[in-house]
Amino acid sequence: MNRIETKHIKDVKLKDPILVEGLPGIGHVGKLVAEHMIDELGAQKIMELYSSHFPPQVIVLADGTVRLVRSEFYAVDTGSRHLLILVGDHQSATNEGHYELTDAYLQVAAEHNVKRIYTLGGYGLGQLVESPAVLGAVNNLALVEEMKRYGVVFKENEPGGGIVGASGLLLGFAALSGIDAICLMGETSGYLVDPKSAQAVLKVLCKALQLNLKMQALEERAKEMEKIVARLREMEQAGIHEVTSEEDLRYIR
Amino acid sequence: MNRIETKHIKDVKLKDPILVEGLPGIGHVGKLVAEHMIDELGAQKIMELYSSHFPPQVIVLADGTVRLVRSEFYAVDTGSRHLLILVGDHQSATNEGHYELTDAYLQVAAEHNVKRIYTLGGYGLGQLVESPAVLGAVNNLALVEEMKRYGVVFKENEPGGGIVGASGLLLGFAALSGIDAICLMGETSGYLVDPKSAQAVLKVLCKALQLNLKMQALEERAKEMEKIVARLREMEQAGIHEVTSEEDLRYIR
Amino acid sequence: MNRIETKHIKDVKLKDPILVEGLPGIGHVGKLVAEHMIDELGAQKIMELYSSHFPPQVIVLADGTVRLVRSEFYAVDTGSRHLLILVGDHQSATNEGHYELTDAYLQVAAEHNVKRIYTLGGYGLGQLVESPAVLGAVNNLALVEEMKRYGVVFKENEPGGGIVGASGLLLGFAALSGIDAICLMGETSGYLVDPKSAQAVLKVLCKALQLNLKMQALEERAKEMEKIVARLREMEQAGIHEVTSEEDLRYIR
Amino acid sequence: MNRIETKHIKDVKLKDPILVEGLPGIGHVGKLVAEHMIDELGAQKIMELYSSHFPPQVIVLADGTVRLVRSEFYAVDTGSRHLLILVGDHQSATNEGHYELTDAYLQVAAEHNVKRIYTLGGYGLGQLVESPAVLGAVNNLALVEEMKRYGVVFKENEPGGGIVGASGLLLGFAALSGIDAICLMGETSGYLVDPKSAQAVLKVLCKALQLNLKMQALEERAKEMEKIVARLREMEQAGIHEVTSEEDLRYIR
Repeated sequence: MNRIETKHIKDVKLKDPILVEGLPGIGHVGKLVAEHMIDELGAQKIMELYSSHFPPQVIVLADGTVRLVRSEFYAVDTGSRHLLILVGDHQSATNEGHYELTDAYLQVAAEHNVKRIYTLGGYGLGQLVESPAVLGAVNNLALVEEMKRYGVVFKENEPGGGIVGASGLLLGFAALSGIDAICLMGETSGYLVDPKSAQAVLKVLCKALQLNLKMQALEERAKEMEKIVARLREMEQAGIHEVTSEEDLRYIR
Repeated sequence: MNRIETKHIKDVKLKDPILVEGLPGIGHVGKLVAEHMIDELGAQKIMELYSSHFPPQVIVLADGTVRLVRSEFYAVDTGSRHLLILVGDHQSATNEGHYELTDAYLQVAAEHNVKRIYTLGGYGLGQLVESPAVLGAVNNLALVEEMKRYGVVFKENEPGGGIVGASGLLLGFAALSGIDAICLMGETSGYLVDPKSAQAVLKVLCKALQLNLKMQALEERAKEMEKIVARLREMEQAGIHEVTSEEDLRYIR
Repeated sequence: MNRIETKHIKDVKLKDPILVEGLPGIGHVGKLVAEHMIDELGAQKIMELYSSHFPPQVIVLADGTVRLVRSEFYAVDTGSRHLLILVGDHQSATNEGHYELTDAYLQVAAEHNVKRIYTLGGYGLGQLVESPAVLGAVNNLALVEEMKRYGVVFKENEPGGGIVGASGLLLGFAALSGIDAICLMGETSGYLVDPKSAQAVLKVLCKALQLNLKMQALEERAKEMEKIVARLREMEQAGIHEVTSEEDLRYIR
Repeated sequence: MNRIETKHIKDVKLKDPILVEGLPGIGHVGKLVAEHMIDELGAQKIMELYSSHFPPQVIVLADGTVRLVRSEFYAVDTGSRHLLILVGDHQSATNEGHYELTDAYLQVAAEHNVKRIYTLGGYGLGQLVESPAVLGAVNNLALVEEMKRYGVVFKENEPGGGIVGASGLLLGFAALSGIDAICLMGETSGYLVDPKSAQAVLKVLCKALQLNLKMQALEERAKEMEKIVARLREMEQAGIHEVTSEEDLRYIR
């Protein structure tokens, strides 16, 4: 077994494609946005990617079947162009794997002649956020002004700790190949899955892609999360401590 | 030294073999079942598998001799077919090793033309279980109904954290080779070696394999464990704290 | 992608070069000194080095652009000789990477016919230091007396835990190639970025290299840090606990 | 750089050699014994072994010079035969490295036609030991009776956790090459460097090798340790808590 293996599902010729990456990360913001886009746009899976750098486990599905941890590429024709959407179960579990997987993702982008990449993520603030802003980072200075027009905020040297994982490395690697790339990060507490932050990111992305997408599914999930947060606060005030650890809460879905 | 080395012990031609995997894991449920089957059926070792992905240590035997950590394949003719039984001392100690070892296990299965795999494990509930159910997961939807007939329970998306290690990966890898595979997980506390959970799993497996096996050895070990649990509870009530850590307790044998 | 990739920025022929290494480490002492030298001397970047052994992230710059984590070589003509200065964002994130990166750094030194190396770092004392001494370690006994003349202190078997990372390994590797190498370690608390310790190291290095460098930038940063330390002490006396963890404080810049 | 590199120091033809391994481990028992033997017998270094599996650091010597972490082989003619003694600074820092280094050690043994190996270590009891026994484990059942004659104790399945690192793996690997190997483990607290336990192991080894060695140096170190232990106990009774962590204490020398 090679350390990374790709499985072609469907041969497609993409016109002027843009890659949107939404792998798991802080608040699962990027993943929520990308999966929402796949659902709303009816994107079709064209490729699966397996790797021994992923955590050594299988995912159990609702019907009792399992499958290996993987990343997936979906494609959809939005009229003027195709979108190529990258989602997955996990980021790399090894240091070197982050680099190797990003390289593999970018090879797929290059094969399809992708000229622009949006990577999506969360920006953890350590406290609940009422109106999440969307922070940006780019791999080409010329993109800053364009992104500001869509409402993206740029803060000097933030995130200070850098952008970790595929969302960051894709920008760095794409620069070496001359591909423009933008990372959009929705402000989020960092403690909970955050559909509200995902909505903020999606709105920016829709402007940038000139797309018109329904938000209802994300809005409903955001309301559910608000109820959970309200309940957690009540319990906290009542002095009841959840047995659920913060780590678990972070990824409530 | 290669990262995985196999040592052939005995050349056998297996008829219509089914692979049963019982490597160490939660509550040592799978290991208890597989070792019990080897003993009761008088299965014979046909192969050993060594790897630098295993923990770097030797096992000390009762007679003062040692041997390298390894996995072992046993075979036995049950009349209508052969069983191939996979047991071992440890799972992989590295991320990549889980994938490489599973691949090696599956190669052995493929060489013997295995058409079905049962992987065995525990499902940790975090509390003591009086009547452990046996949860299932499969790599082919058609298997769900069959397994339900043997009393296997399927719960939507459970285990939520996926199935970690060889028991999970074997299902995922086998699907790629078109081999049917079922994971049977006995409910268990997750804190103690659990022969009672092993009995529950074995009963289901015997139905599925149309085998009739004595349970006495497992029953006796279950009684021993019940005495230990009772003593622990008494000590707890009396306010005596064991020096033994939970980590150690988990694998009392 | 190879595990280490170099990118040549500028072809230069260096005369009688000395390598100065200032990668991140305790109190960021080495990094502060090396970056100060690059600024004051107007050194020019000649090479970048990328590796999958570095942490899997990108650095966000002040203008909103990002770049991959990397190490960089700068060169400057100081009149009598060239200095080759090695700086970078991070040390290796993997065990093997420390060895491979050091080997790569030394290959660059060998290509430029470097005959002497200074590696710079901090020596953590666990408490604030008023007048930091500069400890030394060498890879050739003949260097001890020379270094003592520049005010370097040698303490038997210190640091007792060895010198970890590139600053240490470069000395060990250089010895195998017959290249003289000296590690200069400024005493520091180990809890904060320490420009005062960096000044002490720079003074010694300037004597050794017969350089005359302005210290103003480091002095100003040292004053800023003193204000931060004073404020922290006041808060501590007032019983106010910072939310900032010690880990974060260590690398305040 | 290869992951393991050997450097030949001296070409020697060994007669009927026995390998004695004393790498760092619990209570540094094996290391103390092997280094004492090198000193008392005047053994000469014949080989050094470097590896990127060792911790990424250099050792600082008393004279201010440094050297890479390494393992070393010493040889000495004891009249009837040569002893080949393996010592070193550290065990492997990676899982795979333990296997690769053991393989490399055994290759050296095979080149010199070693027919028997003694590996030395400590057996941690978690409490101070007045009269440490010497436990044994072997890779050939025929060795048990011989070892018992020298006073070695064999306890069923102990150590229960196996023998970790080179001392264990050498026995397992040697068995595959048909080389007899014995592990001698001195009982020790596991918290402190233990020259008293080292004396116990050395006495057994001297009987087995028909050697007559002075113990004075180990006796003196044992007395020093007893003073340290007595002081620690007084402080404990007086309610004074050492700032030194247990981890540090473990390797006081």
